[in-house]
Amino acid sequence: MYLSTGGAYTIGMTGAPGSGKSTLTDKLIGLLRGSGNEVGVLAIDPSSPFSGGAILGDRVRMQDHATDEGVFIRSMATRGHLGGLSLATPQAVRILDAAGKPWIIIETVGVGQVEVEVAGAADTTVVVVNPRWGDGVQANKAGLLEIADVLVVNKADREGAADTVRDLQVMLELAGERDWRPPIVETVATDSRGIDDLWRAILDHRAHLEADGRLERRRDARLRDELRAIVHERLRAGAEERCSGERFDQLVEKVAARKLDPYAAADELLQI
Amino acid sequence: MYLSTGGAYTIGMTGAPGSGKSTLTDKLIGLLRGSGNEVGVLAIDPSSPFSGGAILGDRVRMQDHATDEGVFIRSMATRGHLGGLSLATPQAVRILDAAGKPWIIIETVGVGQVEVEVAGAADTTVVVVNPRWGDGVQANKAGLLEIADVLVVNKADREGAADTVRDLQVMLELAGERDWRPPIVETVATDSRGIDDLWRAILDHRAHLEADGRLERRRDARLRDELRAIVHERLRAGAEERCSGERFDQLVEKVAARKLDPYAAADELLQI
Repeated sequence: MYLSTGGAYTIGMTGAPGSGKSTLTDKLIGLLRGSGNEVGVLAIDPSSPFSGGAILGDRVRMQDHATDEGVFIRSMATRGHLGGLSLATPQAVRILDAAGKPWIIIETVGVGQVEVEVAGAADTTVVVVNPRWGDGVQANKAGLLEIADVLVVNKADREGAADTVRDLQVMLELAGERDWRPPIVETVATDSRGIDDLWRAILDHRAHLEADGRLERRRDARLRDELRAIVHERLRAGAEERCSGERFDQLVEKVAARKLDPYAAADELLQI
Repeated sequence: MYLSTGGAYTIGMTGAPGSGKSTLTDKLIGLLRGSGNEVGVLAIDPSSPFSGGAILGDRVRMQDHATDEGVFIRSMATRGHLGGLSLATPQAVRILDAAGKPWIIIETVGVGQVEVEVAGAADTTVVVVNPRWGDGVQANKAGLLEIADVLVVNKADREGAADTVRDLQVMLELAGERDWRPPIVETVATDSRGIDDLWRAILDHRAHLEADGRLERRRDARLRDELRAIVHERLRAGAEERCSGERFDQLVEKVAARKLDPYAAADELLQI
């Protein structure tokens, strides 16, 4: 399966619950389908039981596209396992990729470390905020500005949108010189306003990455991280196995009886 | 060295910076020395550079005992490495143990997860709070009540001491039935008030643990945790080694070129 992948371009969508990520994703799907493109969506569900209602609503909304064969939606639960999710996400993306979808949107709910990490592991990462006092600052605190390739102020028809844009601009200035300055796009997803601008910003970022080998370098770095994570996970599982069962109990007994020191016992466990 | 250890009894002291842990430790040292007992002290320094001043003060105070050969003080920096410290602490305790100190006080500064874990890995854990609105609640939040075998309200001559004692009692009630109910001792460490009560509470807890094999079971559980941590650490170090160097780079290249999938590459790395 893996060997037939690599054709897809991934877009990460993240932001606080209620910011409108799902509606934006929905509109992007509509835009892509309208121009004849197929699209895969990987929806990362949060582990929190408290936001269950909101997500159900989002998912139902996305079901507009459920009967469309050009759209392939997969859901994944985080369950709070950082290691687990960082391994599972690239595999899930590959399934969508191998299914021939040229565009894959990874949508995360919530802004925890797990979600930030997952959304940040896309080719282009879109961070969604709303016009609210301090919303920009919150995004900064959560580490969202660092991973943002495109910033969206959604619900831009609400009071304070201009202030939020300005806040984000100031924070981007303070973050210093980068080889790509994330554009700030104002949208009203529910009215489909600004969706074309958002799409153009994504295409601009893609063109920037493709211009001088940056995309390949970025994907290489992700592969290195993934390979590292797989090796760590396998060794961790091996450690769990060694640290259970009769042999382990016997060695603990010997150490407790001062017949063996703990480091020598560890050596014996590792030699099995 | 290890084989000649096991004679020492360890006391963990933890609580927020400024709560008076060091002064209490100092007074306990004085009490032990007064009755002819030798004592080892393991002082765990915090990784935060901000509290440097306070600690220096504490250490200087403890130097009262620096010229006393019956007192052996060792300092250790946390540097934020949870794994590192949870491995280093039992080894440092063993050095004091092998030096023939029958009593070892492990004093931590700060109430982070690392400090709680280290102090909780003693035979008797003493948690120090002050009479302040909400101090008891803070202790509960930090997970301190869970690890406490003895609770101390230090600076008990200040306003609100009775309220804090009551708060702690309520929280202990809510925590439910345990085989040992932590006594609450009021002290004014700077005036040496309540130190005898604290010592009696520690001895009571020791007697409780020794009465029916609980102490051995508790130490066995700690040994199991330590052995597990050593095995994990060795495998982690092995993983780091495998995920660097030329071989790793070659495999990443192969994976990037879709000649190999990431899981097969991990297998190859693990077979080295």
